[in-house]
Amino acid sequence: MLASKFHLNTLKEAPTEAEIVSHQLMTRAGMIRKHAGGIYTYMPLGLKIMRKVEAIVREEMNKAGAIELLMPVVQPAELWMESGRWEQYGPELLRIKDRHQRDFVLQPTSEEVITDIARNEIHSYRQLPVNFYHIQTKFRDERRPRFGLMRGREFTMKDAYSFDRDEAGALASYDIMYNAYMRIFKRLGLTFRAVAADTGSIGGSRSHEFQVIADTGEDLIVYNPDSDYAANIELAEAPCLIEKRAEPTQESQEVETPNANKCELVAQQLGVSLDKTVKSVVFVTTPEEGPAQVWLLMVRGDHEINEIKVSKLPAFKHGFRLATEEEILEYFGSEPGYLGPLNTAKPVNIIADTTVANMSDFICGANKAPYHITGINWGRDLPEPEVADLRNVVAGDPAIGEPGTLAIQRGIEVGHVFFLGDKYSSELKATFLNENGKPETLQMGCYGIGISRITAAAIEQNHDEKGIIWPIAMAPFEVVICPVGWGKSEAIRNEATALYETLKQNNIDVILDDRDTRPGVMFSEWELIGVPIRVTIGDRGLKDGIIEVQERSKAEAVKVPVAEVNAYVLSLFNNLKNTL
Amino acid sequence: MLASKFHLNTLKEAPTEAEIVSHQLMTRAGMIRKHAGGIYTYMPLGLKIMRKVEAIVREEMNKAGAIELLMPVVQPAELWMESGRWEQYGPELLRIKDRHQRDFVLQPTSEEVITDIARNEIHSYRQLPVNFYHIQTKFRDERRPRFGLMRGREFTMKDAYSFDRDEAGALASYDIMYNAYMRIFKRLGLTFRAVAADTGSIGGSRSHEFQVIADTGEDLIVYNPDSDYAANIELAEAPCLIEKRAEPTQESQEVETPNANKCELVAQQLGVSLDKTVKSVVFVTTPEEGPAQVWLLMVRGDHEINEIKVSKLPAFKHGFRLATEEEILEYFGSEPGYLGPLNTAKPVNIIADTTVANMSDFICGANKAPYHITGINWGRDLPEPEVADLRNVVAGDPAIGEPGTLAIQRGIEVGHVFFLGDKYSSELKATFLNENGKPETLQMGCYGIGISRITAAAIEQNHDEKGIIWPIAMAPFEVVICPVGWGKSEAIRNEATALYETLKQNNIDVILDDRDTRPGVMFSEWELIGVPIRVTIGDRGLKDGIIEVQERSKAEAVKVPVAEVNAYVLSLFNNLKNTL
Repeated sequence: MLASKFHLNTLKEAPTEAEIVSHQLMTRAGMIRKHAGGIYTYMPLGLKIMRKVEAIVREEMNKAGAIELLMPVVQPAELWMESGRWEQYGPELLRIKDRHQRDFVLQPTSEEVITDIARNEIHSYRQLPVNFYHIQTKFRDERRPRFGLMRGREFTMKDAYSFDRDEAGALASYDIMYNAYMRIFKRLGLTFRAVAADTGSIGGSRSHEFQVIADTGEDLIVYNPDSDYAANIELAEAPCLIEKRAEPTQESQEVETPNANKCELVAQQLGVSLDKTVKSVVFVTTPEEGPAQVWLLMVRGDHEINEIKVSKLPAFKHGFRLATEEEILEYFGSEPGYLGPLNTAKPVNIIADTTVANMSDFICGANKAPYHITGINWGRDLPEPEVADLRNVVAGDPAIGEPGTLAIQRGIEVGHVFFLGDKYSSELKATFLNENGKPETLQMGCYGIGISRITAAAIEQNHDEKGIIWPIAMAPFEVVICPVGWGKSEAIRNEATALYETLKQNNIDVILDDRDTRPGVMFSEWELIGVPIRVTIGDRGLKDGIIEVQERSKAEAVKVPVAEVNAYVLSLFNNLKNTL
Repeated sequence: MLASKFHLNTLKEAPTEAEIVSHQLMTRAGMIRKHAGGIYTYMPLGLKIMRKVEAIVREEMNKAGAIELLMPVVQPAELWMESGRWEQYGPELLRIKDRHQRDFVLQPTSEEVITDIARNEIHSYRQLPVNFYHIQTKFRDERRPRFGLMRGREFTMKDAYSFDRDEAGALASYDIMYNAYMRIFKRLGLTFRAVAADTGSIGGSRSHEFQVIADTGEDLIVYNPDSDYAANIELAEAPCLIEKRAEPTQESQEVETPNANKCELVAQQLGVSLDKTVKSVVFVTTPEEGPAQVWLLMVRGDHEINEIKVSKLPAFKHGFRLATEEEILEYFGSEPGYLGPLNTAKPVNIIADTTVANMSDFICGANKAPYHITGINWGRDLPEPEVADLRNVVAGDPAIGEPGTLAIQRGIEVGHVFFLGDKYSSELKATFLNENGKPETLQMGCYGIGISRITAAAIEQNHDEKGIIWPIAMAPFEVVICPVGWGKSEAIRNEATALYETLKQNNIDVILDDRDTRPGVMFSEWELIGVPIRVTIGDRGLKDGIIEVQERSKAEAVKVPVAEVNAYVLSLFNNLKNTL
């Protein structure tokens, strides 16, 4: 490609609304242009990147035996009513009406449509297993779209759906997809981690997220550097930090703690370490039948409640929320900040985190501001508690069931594999006939990759103050040739053109910048855009028989003799490709 | 591809709603599945075809210098309000609201968005010319979607938009696209014609449709077999069939013509040929100012009024309609069927078709049922008329300005190129700075190809009673290997697998049918699906050292010695490819 025949349009400044670096850099590099909140055009440069991601995803999906089809963007509401998601899905599901006032949705995913296809197309166990996927425009009407492609409304996703005759088959299909995803993210050249994940409202018993590691990620990943263990913090089991509860050594005692409405302040005032304090969090559950119930959940002062874990407690399954100040006053007789399990105004249900359950001589609020009680002991001052894992893992927690110490890093979720079981197939009555001619319900899995999100996540992971540093597999161009003085020197034009032709013949995606812009401007532009290899051909160098080759990820350029430049660039290119 | 690893699901019967052969065959062959009126999933077989079309379109667009980007499906209403199409576009434009009740449209085309991009991205004449295109999902909310992919609601279209500094530049861009389209449809292996077309509501002065020739087409194409001339009948200029008006030979005379309310019946009753009669059609125009006006338009009895031509008459530009029976009675004093230019009840405006204007001794209604008047002559019985081309060309009309006789055939519009001028760029104020630093308005062209429609049009053109006959460039598979007795015979499996591997190595898109179905069922399935080359390997043949090769388009199979089959199939394949 000649730069003069392509459309490049970089900007000096990012829009003020661009809060994260990928949004800033993609806009500045001219890869995306915004039309409305979360709705973008992929400009030629941006589309090239997305197409490269798509191609790798498609290749690995095909290798894994998945079959591509294309389901519609506009889907009839009837199917979504059958699955129940017409009601369950929040306002992110854009519901629209056609000219005849019939209801449709803009697809955020395609479980319903694919299950409808399966129930019509799959008749016999002989047709199983089968895995259908498509790469299609999705729409989620985010309340506050932002972060560019990271949380857009219209985006491109690869979603695959496997159908099997039984759970064992479905889990085998799951593993095939898991392995395909591992290959995809490796080939893309990203640092990533497959982490066990919560199955959320989709249910099912197995789920992994594929997280691109980046400091700016929204997700927290718990992992064991000494093993393969990795899980989203939402799911990661927290160890009990106290192996055996110690015997009481203190009497319980009410102490005044003025203005100490947080564990940190209490520990400071009383001159004890934070891990002697216990945090009290009050929830209200709304059971299917009967009145709402009030719960006191207790985690150590240096720990945080994990609401995903809370949501899985048996009593919390039908809905829960934090208690209001009025409810707290009614049940505890105190304002928040001084709550505890002793002397509540009304009886409340208590659950202690596994670590709290093994604490002794601990400190809680006295249910009377501004007082706390020290020296509390289970079994003596209050009954043995109900116990559950209620907290987030923190860095330094020991791994469970294996050696090692847990660490935490941030990630951006770019892929997700789910075992679905019969969630959709039973709602939509998608069955097949087994060997005995008896109908059985299809077992499903679903597997998503955020194609457009990957492009943003790659930037969050790979950038510097100058701009983007693309892994070569995703780079909009693999090599850029920058002639300094294109318009003035025939020698430069000849040398640049010869190299350009050679690289093209070797199937390298190369762009020759023939726009004759000033070297500083030209270099900044290509550093911003992030092309992995830049070749600079200038008069001064040519006089010395030298061409400069600069890797985007390296600080220094390499001076290469003119006669060797073809071989050098080809070899550098192959090295970058092979390190994937 | 192994058939056992692909998803094939052919049907014996087409759905009753499938009125046209492409809809029937695509459904029966398992290429599409319907979810709602005009909304389909492209099943794996259907998607393969569409992707092959896309690839050819993309390749030729890139060769022609167009630059691919991707504009969104969901577009903000504001841009459509700026262009005026928010108001002008009928209910086919699906207008939707997001969760914040903001207005959006599902794009039927992208003139607004691309013009918005252009006004932001193009600053200088140095950036021109430029041509952007995308291949994206479109939505048109047809009142009555039908004919499968031929008139769907959600469909895939390639739309390109060129930007130039002046009209000459825009017309050059137009010609580049015209030539690219010629290459695209040639490479697809379709019989087609580029025809001059009406520019309709988009305006502009130059437009061509690319029509796939098929008896089932909705469009009528006028062409000169002895020249390059071809035009949509809507646009095709009709010749005046009478070079010079003859002198009157008859007196005008009222004759009774009972029940003869059509020219055919009048000619029959009076024993004259149809071309002595003149048809009277009454329109009412609604001018911008002043009262509605009544017009009598006259075409010869064997001709048809062309309403597109009528719409371009100066007085008709602001709107017109057929007159009601009440209006006809008021102005002509007669019921329809007996109307004419003489003795009207009130004065009416008269326009005669060019042929009618040169007629003499002709017959019209008497404005009194059931009478007609014979022997009418211009200048004697009524004033010389206003004259215009009002009629459709009929087969046999002489070509205008060149030798030859016009013929008519049916076609399916699959592509359209338009010179737009500044229609959108002036509404959206898309300007650039010329060499003198002065702002000028961008000159635009737009160029569409109905990707999904092409797949249906190809079938309308290429099918027989057994199924589809794909041109090799679009075929879902290029070769199918049909082993008869796959499960029973190792010799057959070996032979089939060896050929399969050879063809794959030669980059042929081959499928090996390893499903072990009965030969009759297997052959019918592949004939229905329409794979161009079928290779049948059976025990009987192998004993005789013979493998059968059947071209889908040929009546007879060819028996090829086993040792020669690789070479034979490769050569046949290359021949089919090269005839494109």
